Amino acid sequence: MKVRRSNRLIDMTKYLLDRPHTLIPLTFFVDRYGSAKSSISEDLGILKQTFKDRGIGIVDTIPGAAGGTRFLPSIPAAEAKAFVDDLKDALNDDSRYLAGGYIYMADVLSYPSTLRTIGRIMATKFVDQRIDAVLTVATKGIPIAQSIATNLNVPFVVAQHDSKITDGSTISVNYVSGSNNNVKKMVLSKRSLAANSRVLIVDDYLKGGGTVNGLATLAREFNCEVAGVSVLAEENFARREFTDQEYVSLVKVDIAKHITVSDGNFLKTVFNQK
Amino acid sequence: MKVRRSNRLIDMTKYLLDRPHTLIPLTFFVDRYGSAKSSISEDLGILKQTFKDRGIGIVDTIPGAAGGTRFLPSIPAAEAKAFVDDLKDALNDDSRYLAGGYIYMADVLSYPSTLRTIGRIMATKFVDQRIDAVLTVATKGIPIAQSIATNLNVPFVVAQHDSKITDGSTISVNYVSGSNNNVKKMVLSKRSLAANSRVLIVDDYLKGGGTVNGLATLAREFNCEVAGVSVLAEENFARREFTDQEYVSLVKVDIAKHITVSDGNFLKTVFNQK
Repeated sequence: MKVRRSNRLIDMTKYLLDRPHTLIPLTFFVDRYGSAKSSISEDLGILKQTFKDRGIGIVDTIPGAAGGTRFLPSIPAAEAKAFVDDLKDALNDDSRYLAGGYIYMADVLSYPSTLRTIGRIMATKFVDQRIDAVLTVATKGIPIAQSIATNLNVPFVVAQHDSKITDGSTISVNYVSGSNNNVKKMVLSKRSLAANSRVLIVDDYLKGGGTVNGLATLAREFNCEVAGVSVLAEENFARREFTDQEYVSLVKVDIAKHITVSDGNFLKTVFNQK
Repeated sequence: MKVRRSNRLIDMTKYLLDRPHTLIPLTFFVDRYGSAKSSISEDLGILKQTFKDRGIGIVDTIPGAAGGTRFLPSIPAAEAKAFVDDLKDALNDDSRYLAGGYIYMADVLSYPSTLRTIGRIMATKFVDQRIDAVLTVATKGIPIAQSIATNLNVPFVVAQHDSKITDGSTISVNYVSGSNNNVKKMVLSKRSLAANSRVLIVDDYLKGGGTVNGLATLAREFNCEVAGVSVLAEENFARREFTDQEYVSLVKVDIAKHITVSDGNFLKTVFNQK
């Protein structure tokens, strides 16, 4: 049964959105709709243009027998900036100040629409890099890791501070928490991360950098390579101990009884270099 | 500038998919595309039919001045059944057996596409109920909670076993772990859940039911009502102590050195009653 263009375009949009970074052969759509190759090519041209005009992302067409179409989610600079501005406004609020010099952010990470946009922004930075897995540590990094992994369409794996029975065998590393010099431990299920993966490290908050260093050590214990580090917020913190790791952050937080939230390095790093 | 139907349909699809359970006035699309109301109505008719034919979900149109269009994600019974069958095949694997009678499932919960479908299936059950928030406990329930919350477009909140500095003030409850009779504690940030919410409790694994009872107690401490309980897997466990809570599960696990995974009650409960 032939399917009309209107119906095809709706279904193709949904199909591509659900499968980012996945090559779909032209013949798949030809069979799905009983349409001619030329019609499907035209459909993809319309999709490509609309996705571009509306800032949804890139519809990439690879010609040839092994070719097909891929959807690469990304966000326009203006939209990313508007989101970061809103996020700063939401966080720039002294009622978020917690004893000991911390900031309450859990509410921000509870809204699916916010997380969706964070994932799309972060995936833009890594759109043309090979990422095989996203790695984070429980618990507040998990929703962000899931959102980025969804946009990159790769698995995300979660290290824990204590090993659970349901993790099976684990590998553990010790690391120094940069902010208070405690030695801490994190563990990761041996089955969860394949060797030789290129791993994107994700967390909600970067202070001394100890957690990120711990995650990087853990990745190396699995014979994996760190492809990048991506955090929602970094604190303006003097004694950060990063040896060789670049990172991107959406916002930067200054805490001194008052909270001041400004741009992280993301917008500058990612959009000014384009 | 007028936008052509092809481009409108693609953009509307994306727009609706990103905003489940949200009423969007017709005039919003009229303004967005500079199109006549009659054209937008026709577009919505095409969307409605295609979403139905392709099993994407329901496009609901509410007439009148306060009306508009809502997208309600759902999944057809056949697609849900195929997914549950695949999940059973993946889990029916003795190499998943862990000492003490546990099952390794973390890998299943690391794939965004798997989580997306779990979320869509579970949201189908609650598509016509008022749910204000999804509640789970760290850590393995988080990705499932996020996926369901994304499909219902409500915030999800995460209880913890220990309170973290970044939670601020918390409310804690003690509960008895049904599977080993230990008394445990869980805490939830006071700011995270609004009073009088109808809460959907979500977890990855249901054994004795202690955790779900604990979450229900916690919900009541916040003056919230439990709207339902939804778990990925339940164990075939004799001594479950559920007082008044119905639940749905996608799969049921029998562990006795060998693992046997069969249907949970979801397909029967949700799709046979329709």
